[in-house]
Amino acid sequence: MQIVSENACFGGVQGVYTHTSEACGCDMTFGLFMPEEAKDGPVPVLWYLSGLTCTHENAMAKAGAQGWAAEQGIALIFPDTSPRGDDVADDDAYDLGKGAGFYVNATQAPWAPHFRMWDYIAEELPALATSEFAIDPERQAITGHSMGGHGALTLAMNLPGRYKSVSAFAPISHPTTGDWGRKQLSAYLGDDEAAWAPHDATLMMREAGFAGPVLTDTGTNDQFIDLLKPEALAEAVNARRQQAILRLQPGYDHSYFFVSTFMEDHVTFHAEALYAG
Amino acid sequence: MQIVSENACFGGVQGVYTHTSEACGCDMTFGLFMPEEAKDGPVPVLWYLSGLTCTHENAMAKAGAQGWAAEQGIALIFPDTSPRGDDVADDDAYDLGKGAGFYVNATQAPWAPHFRMWDYIAEELPALATSEFAIDPERQAITGHSMGGHGALTLAMNLPGRYKSVSAFAPISHPTTGDWGRKQLSAYLGDDEAAWAPHDATLMMREAGFAGPVLTDTGTNDQFIDLLKPEALAEAVNARRQQAILRLQPGYDHSYFFVSTFMEDHVTFHAEALYAG
Repeated sequence: MQIVSENACFGGVQGVYTHTSEACGCDMTFGLFMPEEAKDGPVPVLWYLSGLTCTHENAMAKAGAQGWAAEQGIALIFPDTSPRGDDVADDDAYDLGKGAGFYVNATQAPWAPHFRMWDYIAEELPALATSEFAIDPERQAITGHSMGGHGALTLAMNLPGRYKSVSAFAPISHPTTGDWGRKQLSAYLGDDEAAWAPHDATLMMREAGFAGPVLTDTGTNDQFIDLLKPEALAEAVNARRQQAILRLQPGYDHSYFFVSTFMEDHVTFHAEALYAG
Repeated sequence: MQIVSENACFGGVQGVYTHTSEACGCDMTFGLFMPEEAKDGPVPVLWYLSGLTCTHENAMAKAGAQGWAAEQGIALIFPDTSPRGDDVADDDAYDLGKGAGFYVNATQAPWAPHFRMWDYIAEELPALATSEFAIDPERQAITGHSMGGHGALTLAMNLPGRYKSVSAFAPISHPTTGDWGRKQLSAYLGDDEAAWAPHDATLMMREAGFAGPVLTDTGTNDQFIDLLKPEALAEAVNARRQQAILRLQPGYDHSYFFVSTFMEDHVTFHAEALYAG
């Protein structure tokens, strides 16, 4: 692992690091905010998964999360959204290939060798982060935006016990039925839709639910709301009687101005779960 | 004036607007955050002047100021740092020409026709903003980062009564004596250093001071600190017995991670002055 940069930030350190990823078969870069409290021992961590077109950098620079994480003594980890490099397959569309890993392990050519973002986020990066930094593996929570909200929700429900809480900003909530989902799941996973089901938050909510609190925010003016399908997740949450707070925020859109507005609420929400026991 | 974008943000609106600037002889773009309170009448405004290479966009996206401004009911205005367009002179260096207007009215070729950022910030943009938006011209304050801190301090001391308070993040504090200053002031204003003096915060502090509170933050690990010369401003502030808080922040550098860390303090500082009377 190599240090790309480390900047003092809200009493802690905002770092950027690269490492050779076995899961993705390429070098990967991630951002990590460590609060001042990490000097005294392991701290809880909140994962932030980003959306289409993003790298590790967008949320780190624009989501305004570090101040609230510093207040709570929580680390933040900002992974990239896909494998990178000249020998990694790509597509001309913004929503397939680089910047659009969708948090799955691809099984189909040309994506299969590198596009293994599920294993990267679920296994490799947590192992690296908890061994290299003062992060408590027993106190993890997860959030994300858009495609990253999809990733946060599906990881949380597929890995029971891993995360104390899950939240999402404008998550892609039912990808097996929409244009943000069918295209990518068929490209990465093939045409057998049975393989898609673990990667659909609504289907996972129907099947499994989450043993902890759930929070989502979506703007009523989100320009992509028809692709996000918050109503499908709401129906599944209600049918299951899942502990959850599902909010529609008047006038907000899909941008980081929306994300930063509600970041304090999300960090506070996760802090309550991370420090409860 | 045309709307480029408007996004809901912390209960208010983060807008981006373009207009034809008479001062700069080109189209100019600025960001403006209006808090919810502006629906009920004019609100105070805090100017944020950006540093070298920036546009209106950097601070708007990365400084984390809107949440604190919303809490205080204050508007934020984010101007660009130079004239723009194909017929505007430029230089290969990052620190001269486009993105490096230095908040002066150039008198020298090839800069003179467009590089009139002083008039733009001091006269044209405030007139536009207070006529088009619910901003109270009697309650203005100003801050900035690096070159923008230089701009904030020099505007504040040259325009007595205009701003209730002035602050700066890592300001270029004594440009007539350093490489961030002599090069640009000589290019824009010519070799007669008498014309430079109003554009040097340390010289202005010696000559005039500021009839209100002053706050500056500079990181002890700022990689440009030898160019910033905070010690020169400190000496002038102390000699004058100027009301001021001059802080050196341990471990912080020149980045927006530094700026965002102390943004709450700066907005609170200005709010106290803007609402005091």
